[in-house]
Amino acid sequence: MKHNFGAGPCILPQEVFKKAAAAVIDFNGLSILEVSHRSADFVAVMEEARENVKKALNVPAGYTVLFLQGGASLGFLITAYNMMGKHKRAGYINTGTWATNAIKEAKGIGLDVVEIASSQDKGFSYIPKGFEIPEDIDFLHFTSNNTIAGTQFKDFPKTNVPLVCDMSSDIFSKEINVADFDIIYAGAQKNLGPAGATLYIVKDEILGKSTAEHIPSYLDLAIHAKKDSMFNTPPVYSVFVANLNLQHMLENGGVQAIAKENQAKAELIYKTIDENPLFEGTTAVEDRSEMNVTFRLTDESLTDKFNAAWNAAGIVGLKGHRSVGGFRASMYNALPLSSVEVLVDVMNNFNK
Amino acid sequence: MKHNFGAGPCILPQEVFKKAAAAVIDFNGLSILEVSHRSADFVAVMEEARENVKKALNVPAGYTVLFLQGGASLGFLITAYNMMGKHKRAGYINTGTWATNAIKEAKGIGLDVVEIASSQDKGFSYIPKGFEIPEDIDFLHFTSNNTIAGTQFKDFPKTNVPLVCDMSSDIFSKEINVADFDIIYAGAQKNLGPAGATLYIVKDEILGKSTAEHIPSYLDLAIHAKKDSMFNTPPVYSVFVANLNLQHMLENGGVQAIAKENQAKAELIYKTIDENPLFEGTTAVEDRSEMNVTFRLTDESLTDKFNAAWNAAGIVGLKGHRSVGGFRASMYNALPLSSVEVLVDVMNNFNK
Repeated sequence: MKHNFGAGPCILPQEVFKKAAAAVIDFNGLSILEVSHRSADFVAVMEEARENVKKALNVPAGYTVLFLQGGASLGFLITAYNMMGKHKRAGYINTGTWATNAIKEAKGIGLDVVEIASSQDKGFSYIPKGFEIPEDIDFLHFTSNNTIAGTQFKDFPKTNVPLVCDMSSDIFSKEINVADFDIIYAGAQKNLGPAGATLYIVKDEILGKSTAEHIPSYLDLAIHAKKDSMFNTPPVYSVFVANLNLQHMLENGGVQAIAKENQAKAELIYKTIDENPLFEGTTAVEDRSEMNVTFRLTDESLTDKFNAAWNAAGIVGLKGHRSVGGFRASMYNALPLSSVEVLVDVMNNFNK
Repeated sequence: MKHNFGAGPCILPQEVFKKAAAAVIDFNGLSILEVSHRSADFVAVMEEARENVKKALNVPAGYTVLFLQGGASLGFLITAYNMMGKHKRAGYINTGTWATNAIKEAKGIGLDVVEIASSQDKGFSYIPKGFEIPEDIDFLHFTSNNTIAGTQFKDFPKTNVPLVCDMSSDIFSKEINVADFDIIYAGAQKNLGPAGATLYIVKDEILGKSTAEHIPSYLDLAIHAKKDSMFNTPPVYSVFVANLNLQHMLENGGVQAIAKENQAKAELIYKTIDENPLFEGTTAVEDRSEMNVTFRLTDESLTDKFNAAWNAAGIVGLKGHRSVGGFRASMYNALPLSSVEVLVDVMNNFNK
């Protein structure tokens, strides 16, 4: 039994893996890998997946759910194109690598990017607060959870400006109010499903309203919406497995139940980090992520010993990102509390 | 036992399905669906898949193999961006829906598109020949096999102009001379693997040479090449299964052996179409595709009866594309000759 603390692609529920494997052999008499995306069987899967996203997040009427490709990295471009409005100016909050990359893509297509706030001065170890949001921007973009730094917005910016959020690494981890956003997007490979699909939740009002001179077809959310997420061949298996995961989520108390479990996991490990003098967190306490827990040894000469200890316990994926160093315990939805307990035991026993 | 004549996503070898299912449960102790794309285990898979493409197609030195996302539909844009040269003008051969879409994306980013030749006058039922290729274009783009119409280039255009080819539906079906091309690209979901990955074989010389004012990061092949196809999270499972399929191909005589089998399958079914007065082909005889065999009943009132007959034989996916009508037998690499024999039997018994 391995305890997968990997930062993504990451653990999904074991029941999902079992069903996902079975369908590779038999999905209504064929392998799910050889099924036409235009077949009635797969069209039903796609529709169910889109509906299940709406159920899981209480998506209100007036929003369209899409499964595209290209990850958030292509999403940086897609959101900038589709949200370009009369100001041709957008606000971005820079909280890390992914936000920085989003800014780059927006600038590249001619958006005037205003960096509303940034935490780069302290290595992205906190979430900026108390910033002013100008009114003359088309939208405000932010990254709800920062996988690399280990920070997370606990409250979303309050503004009349349309909000666009990259929720790749904490979507489905807690309840959100979708009505506050014009676009939510997320690479699937954390809390949703395997790599290869990218989720978009789009306010219908914005579709076709871009002021960009030209949007290439694949980057135009209006085209994807019109084609019910089947403009071209979708990532069939990723959507199929995402739907299995959504089913599992809904059958087990939904996002509300998951949020409680995530809180319990985070409390346990952060308590350990704070109480055990051998470890320290790397981020501002009030901005600590429930998804990616970044910490380090107070005595770095113990690194090899600590690595040996968690490896021996069957833990994988605990190495920190090279830009932060130390360790990163990614605790996505499917990681059970019992795995966190194993890690905490390793940390506590390491103390003795 | 079903006989899957679907146009794609399509049949892959049964051994590949078995290994693909097993890895969803156990790939070095984790599910392949939860493995980090940065793990040594998956980096090795990606490298092997890229090497196996080179082996299978005898890719010469000076070419880079990439696995991206977005399908050929995003490829239309990517190739146009990356191949834009000093003329800002490109030649396109229009042989069907996909070529038409490629032209649209190229025009959209400001390329001056010269439609070198087109078979639109006869519903794309043939491959244009004897056309002149101007010298003052940056590249010539064509679609080697036309999935919808059922036509295929038997000889590739001879020219000094750089060639770019969308080989989505016949790559790995026969030997090709990669050195003739600057870019070959292909959606995986025919002869390569499951939907969700897109293959690019790119001449290194062209990388970074685009004259486009700006290329968004995800659309820049130079960026993907520099990052060894790991600029962002790749479609892990699609690449994994594509590699299984490439391994299977190489262990079974490679593309050379497959080409023979594909010829035998095509000869058998086209002979039946030509000899059986109940059926007729829909394309010019000399341009018939070995991958997608389009045909119709000479007496359309027999349609329901014929549908019942092939359905009863366990055949799936034979319905023609709505723009052509009739029937389409897609015979990708993994479709065994025995399945074609079943179809031919149905057609011959239907005659009696």
